[in-house]
Amino acid sequence: MSLIRTDLALEAHESAARSGKPDGVVVEKFSRGGINVSRVKVIDERGEQAIGKPVGTYVTVETGKLDNVGGDEYNEAVEAVADEIKEILKKVGNGLVLVAGLGNAGMTPDALGPRCVKNILVTRHIAGELTKIEGLESLRAVAAIAPGVLGQTGVETGEIIKAIVERIHPAAVIAVDALASRRTSRLGNTIQIADTGINPGSGIGNMRFAINQETLGVPVISIGVPTVVDAATLAIDVLEGAGIETPPKDEERIRASIDPDGVSLFVTPRMIDLIVEHAASLAALAINRALHPGVSVEDINKLVS
Amino acid sequence: MSLIRTDLALEAHESAARSGKPDGVVVEKFSRGGINVSRVKVIDERGEQAIGKPVGTYVTVETGKLDNVGGDEYNEAVEAVADEIKEILKKVGNGLVLVAGLGNAGMTPDALGPRCVKNILVTRHIAGELTKIEGLESLRAVAAIAPGVLGQTGVETGEIIKAIVERIHPAAVIAVDALASRRTSRLGNTIQIADTGINPGSGIGNMRFAINQETLGVPVISIGVPTVVDAATLAIDVLEGAGIETPPKDEERIRASIDPDGVSLFVTPRMIDLIVEHAASLAALAINRALHPGVSVEDINKLVS
Amino acid sequence: MSLIRTDLALEAHESAARSGKPDGVVVEKFSRGGINVSRVKVIDERGEQAIGKPVGTYVTVETGKLDNVGGDEYNEAVEAVADEIKEILKKVGNGLVLVAGLGNAGMTPDALGPRCVKNILVTRHIAGELTKIEGLESLRAVAAIAPGVLGQTGVETGEIIKAIVERIHPAAVIAVDALASRRTSRLGNTIQIADTGINPGSGIGNMRFAINQETLGVPVISIGVPTVVDAATLAIDVLEGAGIETPPKDEERIRASIDPDGVSLFVTPRMIDLIVEHAASLAALAINRALHPGVSVEDINKLVS
Amino acid sequence: MSLIRTDLALEAHESAARSGKPDGVVVEKFSRGGINVSRVKVIDERGEQAIGKPVGTYVTVETGKLDNVGGDEYNEAVEAVADEIKEILKKVGNGLVLVAGLGNAGMTPDALGPRCVKNILVTRHIAGELTKIEGLESLRAVAAIAPGVLGQTGVETGEIIKAIVERIHPAAVIAVDALASRRTSRLGNTIQIADTGINPGSGIGNMRFAINQETLGVPVISIGVPTVVDAATLAIDVLEGAGIETPPKDEERIRASIDPDGVSLFVTPRMIDLIVEHAASLAALAINRALHPGVSVEDINKLVS
Repeated sequence: MSLIRTDLALEAHESAARSGKPDGVVVEKFSRGGINVSRVKVIDERGEQAIGKPVGTYVTVETGKLDNVGGDEYNEAVEAVADEIKEILKKVGNGLVLVAGLGNAGMTPDALGPRCVKNILVTRHIAGELTKIEGLESLRAVAAIAPGVLGQTGVETGEIIKAIVERIHPAAVIAVDALASRRTSRLGNTIQIADTGINPGSGIGNMRFAINQETLGVPVISIGVPTVVDAATLAIDVLEGAGIETPPKDEERIRASIDPDGVSLFVTPRMIDLIVEHAASLAALAINRALHPGVSVEDINKLVS
Repeated sequence: MSLIRTDLALEAHESAARSGKPDGVVVEKFSRGGINVSRVKVIDERGEQAIGKPVGTYVTVETGKLDNVGGDEYNEAVEAVADEIKEILKKVGNGLVLVAGLGNAGMTPDALGPRCVKNILVTRHIAGELTKIEGLESLRAVAAIAPGVLGQTGVETGEIIKAIVERIHPAAVIAVDALASRRTSRLGNTIQIADTGINPGSGIGNMRFAINQETLGVPVISIGVPTVVDAATLAIDVLEGAGIETPPKDEERIRASIDPDGVSLFVTPRMIDLIVEHAASLAALAINRALHPGVSVEDINKLVS
Repeated sequence: MSLIRTDLALEAHESAARSGKPDGVVVEKFSRGGINVSRVKVIDERGEQAIGKPVGTYVTVETGKLDNVGGDEYNEAVEAVADEIKEILKKVGNGLVLVAGLGNAGMTPDALGPRCVKNILVTRHIAGELTKIEGLESLRAVAAIAPGVLGQTGVETGEIIKAIVERIHPAAVIAVDALASRRTSRLGNTIQIADTGINPGSGIGNMRFAINQETLGVPVISIGVPTVVDAATLAIDVLEGAGIETPPKDEERIRASIDPDGVSLFVTPRMIDLIVEHAASLAALAINRALHPGVSVEDINKLVS
Repeated sequence: MSLIRTDLALEAHESAARSGKPDGVVVEKFSRGGINVSRVKVIDERGEQAIGKPVGTYVTVETGKLDNVGGDEYNEAVEAVADEIKEILKKVGNGLVLVAGLGNAGMTPDALGPRCVKNILVTRHIAGELTKIEGLESLRAVAAIAPGVLGQTGVETGEIIKAIVERIHPAAVIAVDALASRRTSRLGNTIQIADTGINPGSGIGNMRFAINQETLGVPVISIGVPTVVDAATLAIDVLEGAGIETPPKDEERIRASIDPDGVSLFVTPRMIDLIVEHAASLAALAINRALHPGVSVEDINKLVS
């Protein structure tokens, strides 16, 4: 396996595909309203080996410029993400959904999950009331939590979520997290939707306790947006962009040199505040649209603000 | 019972004592290093009736000016609060303690709990490691959580805490919350420590689900600092301060007029940001000192920052 | 003059009018699209004496509930405020406008001005470029500054603004500031637009250096939204709401008792964060609409975000 | 000149020195209390050419780990920075000093200046009063401003500072800004103090209007802390660290590939919030100590908090 570090199945597949099309992975690409969508299906163990992601489906939606909030392309991206979430939710039915915003609210690149959760339309305690007052179609019950990270709480994020799941019994969990991608050009504007939950080593917080159907007992949809790039990956990629080949032995040397303690140095652009704000709003709006398909974007904005 | 709204047992007792010393309540006052400390013990049902607080001990520590951080009086107040917490913890032994910061981090007067939790020295996951590295005496295991409020999560705060308690089995919980006091002069500089937990209707969030030994199954120490005053209470108090009597029937009229929907209008000074910051730091430092008596204030500051 | 403390000319006039219609003041009221608008004209010295505001025009626009962002009533309020600003700007022509956000960004009730400025479409340095790129009608040159308060900078706010005015020579200044009103029900949802600038003693920061045509040499439009109520005023008002008369001598006693040092105790509701956020967005959108009438609300939102 | 991008004279000199010791530059290194201090003196035009910095003195102080606030090494670093500032101030005498925090408070890596300014002890308006109340030696008059960046205000930062300088006539300006360094290991823990002010192209905001004695008419001390690394520089450096030579023609190719529009992509570690907080506190404390040598660290902390 390459030393390239990425949480996006799409990029992991691209890397693997250089030395020949990998077995056990199926990739479809299409576009809708100017938005590129890719669907990477890891169908068996060969696929898991090839790209380093568990069996399941990983969809990436690529939006345009970060500053185009509210434009046509932005709206299309929201609907594309919402449609993928709805597709996975079909198997779940109409029960309660728990949205979990992973990460550290006090560290900007890691704050995607907590900030997304702030914009989620939470209804578990008032669904009936809201439906009546606002003249809306019946709303799905939604709860939301930003549990914090191990360093803040002393408790694994997954343990806190499991405790809450055991108490409120949602039909599914949606876990939102910041990711590492290979390319800085993806930061803040590529959204990955997966039906496999969040697995050890993924996310920029390097989760150790999996947050998936196996650990929680209910389906877990993960929504991730890259906000950082691993520094060694950035260096290798910069070389490659300039047409300079890095032999694998150099890659190892590079990684050892930049990261002697085996602790990844993730880097992020100077514009990180804008990137996280944009991505958190987009992800929250898409989740809200998927969970309450009968409520318009305008009404969602009014109810959440 | 009077229409005066306060979460401080000391103020509730003062109100009640006007029409004669109430039965079932014992009050002690003393001072240490220039700091006033009062201990209100509600010893039976008569006391509960008289001052509207459950049987238990309520200690208030009054500090001086808000801006005197790090001065002698500040340090004495920290130690006074820490001593009261230690006293209650004696019965608990050395087990894990969960610190829960109640309230809404996004609403300044309500953010005391979440901000306090940010400054708690969390050790559950690294107690052994820290002890070795820093050459400290052995540290107590501490976890911390800021669960958010019902409107943010769709789940009662107490339910989230109960779920976590059932998972990590602490020996005790310390719940930190913003309170309402009768007098604006107390905001940010009076700390109440109680061994009764947090009971419905108390706190400015008007908790509905109790957070106490009965609901959680472990002792709950509550630490509260007033950050708001009820508007009707302020008005009645202003009159009183000016020597103008308000007959009970007028009090009712006042309350009905200011608060026709039965929803309290809590008010807070313009300086609220400073008040909350000061109170959250002081409460956190006192809790840290109580939980790790072998670690100096200086070392705590280094480890937390 | 009454002891009632308010920065709203409308409320000052109401107070004064109790003991008979004051001379030198003309009041018009009308409504547009469900929004109440009042225009108080202080036409001479008698009017100044009666209501304690300099000669000039003070318009108040009253919006509905705080949470109704983006609804019809909200949009109407934005346009009503924008129309009043445009009316005053007619005399100024098309030159550069400097928007100054007064107040302390670190104190929530005082942060209205700085937060408003964050949402201003600033174009002085890129007006030509933007016009071309976005296919917009030509944009007015706009600069914006949040100079901070005396306690933060050591320099009077008005002095900093004057220094910048002397350097960039705007045709007019729009000064945005948080105000004190008489009634809590007005907080965050009444906007006052005046052509008199900001005068000593007004605003919750108790400005000492006037920010008006006389001191700056160019017209100054002030936009204010109440975010606090004076505690003594609240008390007197609560009594009045309950039908209890306060004789003037009691008012004085009340004020002396609540505020012995002559330093006002301003109070604000627990929801202050929401109030300031809402008011700052509304004021900024109205200013943007007034300064760039050819740009739609949708385009403004895209360009500012 | 190399393609390596750095605002630290020390690193620029290291780069230049590879192809032989450059003329016109004198470097001294020493250590005090475990802290490394380097003094790079650019003495003439040859030195300017060699390292790309104007004639003047550039001192770098290197502190240890970021989390060691309040420890011995931290305190020594504070005093080392303070001593360098005092040295430059000797020529200025006791007059008013204006501290200017450059950068965008809303973009974390760029927020060093504004956050530093928040912790400056501002005395211009109260120096006499404070001296009396606190029993302190007489305090120097200090003003402070965070003027914002061109994109926020529409006015060049230097123009705003010049306008204020012309109004309040300080004896000197201290300008605090975030820098770009060559190595990520320096981020947040290397402080550069220079007597040359801030010159076009330096700082991560790419200032266009110089802030120096020539433009302001008074001496300008610049205090900078690196918070970002240029992405191409990072890549070249990673290679070098791994012992892989990059020929100059490849460097150009790398830069062209990573940065086709000539707009630098600055990157910063995931821990950027911690880095900026730490650096801003340290810089502020050092400035406070230099400006008020008679006030202890403890008293400064009390007066500022």
